[in-house]
Amino acid sequence: MPPIKIDHLAVVVDDMPAALNFWQQALGLTLGGTEHNEHEAVDIAFLNVGESRVELLKPITDDSGIAKYLAKRGPGMHHVCIAVSDIEAAMATIRANGVELINETPRTREDGTRYAFVHPKSTGGVMVELYELKGQG
Amino acid sequence: MPPIKIDHLAVVVDDMPAALNFWQQALGLTLGGTEHNEHEAVDIAFLNVGESRVELLKPITDDSGIAKYLAKRGPGMHHVCIAVSDIEAAMATIRANGVELINETPRTREDGTRYAFVHPKSTGGVMVELYELKGQG
Repeated sequence: MPPIKIDHLAVVVDDMPAALNFWQQALGLTLGGTEHNEHEAVDIAFLNVGESRVELLKPITDDSGIAKYLAKRGPGMHHVCIAVSDIEAAMATIRANGVELINETPRTREDGTRYAFVHPKSTGGVMVELYELKGQG
Repeated sequence: MPPIKIDHLAVVVDDMPAALNFWQQALGLTLGGTEHNEHEAVDIAFLNVGESRVELLKPITDDSGIAKYLAKRGPGMHHVCIAVSDIEAAMATIRANGVELINETPRTREDGTRYAFVHPKSTGGVMVELYELKGQG
């Protein structure tokens, strides 16, 4: 079963109002929601585009993974999340092709979504996240 | 009229067979086509994912823009292309919000598709391309 869609494209930003001025006002994407996530130390804004979303991530501390990425690489695209219907099957096929996963078993978000990250050194420099979308695909 | 969808996510690669091993074999995306583009000095592979595509770009000379990007930044995500139904209207709204375009007027690909790039310094570090998809949206 091939993947379903690009679920979201995550973008690290250093200035959330400026980022929203571009993606929402200038480009015209609809704001789907915002979240202040203390656990991951980021402010998040989701913008809808077709079946996908652009996810803006603004670090709120200096020591998170996202903050370190921003300090090292500057603002820009951070990862792409691909939706699959069966995450265990997707991870098994990825592993069988010699590609390294960051998470050896699926992790679960607070909303119940299961996810895993593929190691960028195995993908040609792209951080790829998998999301399991139940009942789709 | 809001944008239609993510048309494609472009990824610069330094090893096309390794990139296809990940995106096609390991992740399971369907190969939509390949192109050897002498004019832009890149080998291209398109992989389908939902309504979008992942576009792999491999420089074939050392002096193209993509080759210089690869040498400076390493392989990884290069730009995201957003499909719009009216590129002049989209560009006017972008400009009215103080965002700088690289192309002041739409350019046209050999297949007739009109496009323009937004300057990454105006988007928070993301190179954004606009495509006009006629008859959609």
